[in-house]
Amino acid sequence: MPFKVLHVGLGPIGIAIVRQVASRKGLTIVGAVDIDPAKAGQDLGDVCGMGRKLRVKVTSDLARTIKSVRPDVAVLCTSSSLKKVLPEFETVLKLKVPIVSTTEELAYPVKSNRATARKIDALAKRARVAVLGTGVNPGFTMDALPIVLTAVCERVDAIEVDRVQDASIRRLPFQQKIGAGLTREEFAERVRLGTVRHVGLAESITMIADAMGWKLDRITDEIQPKVADHAVSSQFLTVEPGLVCGLIQDGAGYRKGKALIRLHMEAYLGAPESFDAVRVAGTPPLNMRIAGGVHGDIATASITVNSIPKVLQAAPGLRTMRDIALPSFAGG
Amino acid sequence: MPFKVLHVGLGPIGIAIVRQVASRKGLTIVGAVDIDPAKAGQDLGDVCGMGRKLRVKVTSDLARTIKSVRPDVAVLCTSSSLKKVLPEFETVLKLKVPIVSTTEELAYPVKSNRATARKIDALAKRARVAVLGTGVNPGFTMDALPIVLTAVCERVDAIEVDRVQDASIRRLPFQQKIGAGLTREEFAERVRLGTVRHVGLAESITMIADAMGWKLDRITDEIQPKVADHAVSSQFLTVEPGLVCGLIQDGAGYRKGKALIRLHMEAYLGAPESFDAVRVAGTPPLNMRIAGGVHGDIATASITVNSIPKVLQAAPGLRTMRDIALPSFAGG
Repeated sequence: MPFKVLHVGLGPIGIAIVRQVASRKGLTIVGAVDIDPAKAGQDLGDVCGMGRKLRVKVTSDLARTIKSVRPDVAVLCTSSSLKKVLPEFETVLKLKVPIVSTTEELAYPVKSNRATARKIDALAKRARVAVLGTGVNPGFTMDALPIVLTAVCERVDAIEVDRVQDASIRRLPFQQKIGAGLTREEFAERVRLGTVRHVGLAESITMIADAMGWKLDRITDEIQPKVADHAVSSQFLTVEPGLVCGLIQDGAGYRKGKALIRLHMEAYLGAPESFDAVRVAGTPPLNMRIAGGVHGDIATASITVNSIPKVLQAAPGLRTMRDIALPSFAGG
Repeated sequence: MPFKVLHVGLGPIGIAIVRQVASRKGLTIVGAVDIDPAKAGQDLGDVCGMGRKLRVKVTSDLARTIKSVRPDVAVLCTSSSLKKVLPEFETVLKLKVPIVSTTEELAYPVKSNRATARKIDALAKRARVAVLGTGVNPGFTMDALPIVLTAVCERVDAIEVDRVQDASIRRLPFQQKIGAGLTREEFAERVRLGTVRHVGLAESITMIADAMGWKLDRITDEIQPKVADHAVSSQFLTVEPGLVCGLIQDGAGYRKGKALIRLHMEAYLGAPESFDAVRVAGTPPLNMRIAGGVHGDIATASITVNSIPKVLQAAPGLRTMRDIALPSFAGG
């Protein structure tokens, strides 16, 4: 019997997940909910540009849809913010449906989100279902993967992770999220407003620190513009020299003035080489590199879909990538 | 309260584990058992060449020692063979003690070992404790790690893993196990007898196949000598040109004549570069490399020690690296 999946949120990531679930054995789409009234009533296949009908109508009332289609799991992709998604989580969990979500702040709740996380944990336990936040980053390349590497270590002194991505092959909203095409002033303003940034470094740092047993006294998260020194283009836009082509973001976790964890991200149009790298200072030291990097959009959709069977067998409550079964492709 | 650890088997790996446990927070050594009568009655620190007493006497009677020291977990490092360790497992599990073991065949039981594995699983469930087989290989570099990487994949078509190690920096028994110093004829004879080989490729292939949902119809495991073309040395021995300096071992998992999984190992004195590499053919494709490789002796001891807290919180039964909590350093 395939698992019945309800999709909540049909932005670019939500759509990428629908496309994967539609073609995976063991999963069947029973419903899709989005707040955009223009999508309501349309066939999900049309909304997702699939060129074929999925025979599932997009709806706008979450509770009513759950009661009518009785999903085994809800995949929630509506916001990066834990506080923003809380009402949706409450609705889904009151109806006792497990959740896999790409909400970045859910991947590993930081201090300021712990009260909200505790609420979700309590609701999930009452419903006797599991909730998981996942994605490629946070959720994998800058946290779960470096954590897994340390399994072979006798001692870990520090962890450094680099994620460098040529953003020109990514979707337009991602290129906008990293500030491509803005002036430096516009970029600074968007950073101030919080609309240009990667959400997740503090979450990843907290996850690593907890796994290593390190009590941090400070976490930093700083964003710089990457300014084009020559014209760079993607299929969606061209950035002239002097304008911003992306961002450089650095997170660090300190204990007694020493950075035990350093996460370095570069995402900009025209980056000469995409890669993911992890350096573990310890015994033995480890030096891992994924040439070409892990493609963000495919990866976030994949890890979300691959996590569904693991969440369905996990213990009730708010889970993280640290306490579900070993992450893996799940498809056959 | 630290977890009380009983060490069973004081060969090179067992000793390396004792040395780590002795210096880790959260763990305390309460006993050590070995079949070698020369070790019985000696202080464990002396037997492990630690230059200090551990105030634990090595004993030879497993059941009596468990009843007297009441460990929270037993670390078993006595043999590669599941059938050989079965009597020890029975003794430990009848006394309701969880087990972490470096027994290679336990890392992921292959078809011919499933009956024995089922016995251990039943004993562990009856005792309401978990049992885990782990190590660097099998247990990590050629199975758990490639499996984890596929978590970001939408599709996986094939997996290839390389593990190349300069054996000159490894312990003497390892150098002997890979046939260093033998003639080609002696090597062939030892391969025939099963005393020169890496145990674990079939286990790793089976673990990967199960994680991917692939039903294999054939697993191969072939050993070739690596012959020195110039004199190569370690601190323990020198191999003249024309003699064997190590082994090359290839495992593959086939479905319908196609190799979906290929594991390639080289371990010989004088390998120019040690590394571990994983290539996942799929969407997205992945190309990972650990420069310098993962040092086998430290890594096997580390992952065993790091698994102790995870085994103590795992569900009862025979567990594998696929179903305990996310592997990681655990020390603080």
